[in-house]
Amino acid sequence: MFSKQTYIQRRMELKKKFPSGILLFLGNDETGMNYADNTYHFRQDSTFLYYFGISMPGFYATIDLDSGEEIIFGDDYTIDSIIWMGDMPTVTSLAEKSGISKTETTGTLKKKLSKAENILFLPPYRAEHQIKLLNLLGIHPNEAVKKASIPFVLAVAEQRNNKTSEEITEIEKAVNTTVLMHRTAMRYAKPGMTEAHVAAKVAQIALESGGQLSFPIIATINGQTLHNHFHGNTIRKGQLFLLDAGAETPMGYAGDMSSTFPVSKKFTPEQRDIYEVCLTAHNSAIEALKPGVHFRDVHLLAARIIFDGLKNLGFTKGNTDDAIVNGAHALFFPCGLGHLMGLDVHDMENLGEQWVGYGGEPKSTQFGLKSLRLGTILKPGYVLTIEPGIYFIPQLIDLWQKNETNKQFLNFDKINKFRDFSGLRNEEDVLITELSHRVLGEPLAKSVAEVENERKFAFD
Amino acid sequence: MFSKQTYIQRRMELKKKFPSGILLFLGNDETGMNYADNTYHFRQDSTFLYYFGISMPGFYATIDLDSGEEIIFGDDYTIDSIIWMGDMPTVTSLAEKSGISKTETTGTLKKKLSKAENILFLPPYRAEHQIKLLNLLGIHPNEAVKKASIPFVLAVAEQRNNKTSEEITEIEKAVNTTVLMHRTAMRYAKPGMTEAHVAAKVAQIALESGGQLSFPIIATINGQTLHNHFHGNTIRKGQLFLLDAGAETPMGYAGDMSSTFPVSKKFTPEQRDIYEVCLTAHNSAIEALKPGVHFRDVHLLAARIIFDGLKNLGFTKGNTDDAIVNGAHALFFPCGLGHLMGLDVHDMENLGEQWVGYGGEPKSTQFGLKSLRLGTILKPGYVLTIEPGIYFIPQLIDLWQKNETNKQFLNFDKINKFRDFSGLRNEEDVLITELSHRVLGEPLAKSVAEVENERKFAFD
Repeated sequence: MFSKQTYIQRRMELKKKFPSGILLFLGNDETGMNYADNTYHFRQDSTFLYYFGISMPGFYATIDLDSGEEIIFGDDYTIDSIIWMGDMPTVTSLAEKSGISKTETTGTLKKKLSKAENILFLPPYRAEHQIKLLNLLGIHPNEAVKKASIPFVLAVAEQRNNKTSEEITEIEKAVNTTVLMHRTAMRYAKPGMTEAHVAAKVAQIALESGGQLSFPIIATINGQTLHNHFHGNTIRKGQLFLLDAGAETPMGYAGDMSSTFPVSKKFTPEQRDIYEVCLTAHNSAIEALKPGVHFRDVHLLAARIIFDGLKNLGFTKGNTDDAIVNGAHALFFPCGLGHLMGLDVHDMENLGEQWVGYGGEPKSTQFGLKSLRLGTILKPGYVLTIEPGIYFIPQLIDLWQKNETNKQFLNFDKINKFRDFSGLRNEEDVLITELSHRVLGEPLAKSVAEVENERKFAFD
Repeated sequence: MFSKQTYIQRRMELKKKFPSGILLFLGNDETGMNYADNTYHFRQDSTFLYYFGISMPGFYATIDLDSGEEIIFGDDYTIDSIIWMGDMPTVTSLAEKSGISKTETTGTLKKKLSKAENILFLPPYRAEHQIKLLNLLGIHPNEAVKKASIPFVLAVAEQRNNKTSEEITEIEKAVNTTVLMHRTAMRYAKPGMTEAHVAAKVAQIALESGGQLSFPIIATINGQTLHNHFHGNTIRKGQLFLLDAGAETPMGYAGDMSSTFPVSKKFTPEQRDIYEVCLTAHNSAIEALKPGVHFRDVHLLAARIIFDGLKNLGFTKGNTDDAIVNGAHALFFPCGLGHLMGLDVHDMENLGEQWVGYGGEPKSTQFGLKSLRLGTILKPGYVLTIEPGIYFIPQLIDLWQKNETNKQFLNFDKINKFRDFSGLRNEEDVLITELSHRVLGEPLAKSVAEVENERKFAFD
């Protein structure tokens, strides 16, 4: 936990944004995998962590905006439990650490809320939250997201988006563990291993740091499949290996990086050419980051570099500006340039991308741009990822070719020869500073020469 | 998956046990950690796996006992999803693999059920199941467990308790990975590491096998704390390290073993003495396993050996039979001797221990015995763990001493000198055969000499 003063200060700022009502915070519970007591690792709700710092299941909190009263609701362990679990902190001592003097048992919450008129809560993203809202407020599970408070969402988003220096320190810890995960993979992966071998090694690094993974590892020779958590393939010489993985610190802050390296000692000439196009887009996008810049423009800058680079290699053709307006680059780069990062790897995605990433502004509906998770003007204190990629997705190639989508910008003959290329990206985590930006964490091998240098270790 | 015939056969047997009605099976969904799309690894419901073999989120199944009709309810991926996820199997192809020809979309299920009179379902253990039952059947989440079908529970329990040879093969795969996890830990742990280092190494072995952990790892120098998932301590010479960890195969079958080893190269004389008492109880309990034996008697046999062994060492006193009847051994051995194991590490714990482990018979309320998870006569095909332990739990020692519990059997002066001893156990997985039993998996070091031999590798 941060110091008591941090949590007091955060809540004080939050309270300034509302005239009246009760803010209700739902902590997370344990989730059983295949029966109630065989649980996944516990993950507290990030907003609960942000304002109260308590990382244990079974807690609620309220802030009464009219009286200013703050209450932590939780139940102390019984002596029976303590025999099995050892000495456990009391609810009072946990509340005290976040600067709250009033605690109650969870059984009193419903009655407390029944007297209130204006109860504000955030959108539930776990089934357990929906049941809590049903039991506490009588809201049907299918109605709960609709009834969440948008002003509450916007207030939390504004506050959490502005990372403080103590948060940056914590994020950088996560990023440094993440760098180690990627460096280890580059030095470890060898032809004949399965993807699972590499993923397991990467997980080991995250876990031995005392934290967790910040999201499920992508470790694959099929980098073109963007949502891919299959690890069953044996990796072979000549293939590209794409790793997207990050660590979460014990306090809950995330790192998130991607790297792509050859399973062989060196990239093939074709791999190197396409890798370098993507890396140029990546580095240029980072260079463009500073306060006042619109993130959509940085995304489109990367798109342009990818389109031009692929034009030099014979995959694309025609006027680049027209191609970008028409979204032709999205055949190769169908996703967004990056996303906010903090206590969540996609920070506050649970609060709704349209509010957190777009401030309520409408999102593009164009294929490619519609997957951009962040569409606002950058401000100091934002932390975000930069992760352009180049992917050869056979199903998408076939679809576009059939529909003649953007055919004036695409050389499908050449593209089809690379149907089995797979895909690649680099990803780093960047802080927007007062005047510019800072890439977080120790440097990780990125250039072809640096990556091939790391790969030597695997073959020693 | 097993062969189509296996699933057809299993369902056929199940259908014989009911006269009429509709059996409703709820598959599991993805669970978001800190937002909906940042998920824990997917774990299918074990009963769903057992009868249908489909290990993907978003499925339901029904068996109409009157018409015999079996239906899989699921939704195919759209082309939009396939662009991100690669080619995905269709619902029809998945149903076909478990020998079911009829599939429908999930949207049709509610209407289908609304026409039925007698719908039987199993107790929900995830909040998502409760919401499904609310939406499908109008059952309030707080009522759903009460309304589950006990005959359905008993039928499933009887069937799943009798492991087939193909299941034993799969369980033994899990156990062999589990043996490797423990052997690796014994050869890896060194003074100065944190518990998390050892846990991470153990997790790596499970994950690189292509499976998962079957339950959260216990890796601790505080073995006396039985429900202990804290891994933050640095391990020191002279301490005991207790590891309780198991692998889950990709098909979902579990292994579950415990081992205890000195952080130093060798046990201290005190550690060795107590370890050997516990190991004798362990080995004797295994020797006693065969069809027709009541598991409670095996538990009490282990309790007796522990009590007698500790008497020789000066911790206990008095008549052993009286001590066991009074539960005096439970100061050191407060938990059960073992539990069923299969698709769940505590097999079918979600269906209710009173039905699965006790066949509806009442459970003892005595401290110690009330934690015994299995209280029936053993039959061929049962797979269970044997895991007696000896623990010095300061909170329990204080409680008993204050209340003078069983003071005629306990030398509290001596016991208090071992308040910081921590705790130890060995655990293995055993199949009940037609005439006797078989310990599953490759052998793992158990005797003091064997364990100390493994520990040499750590210091090489």
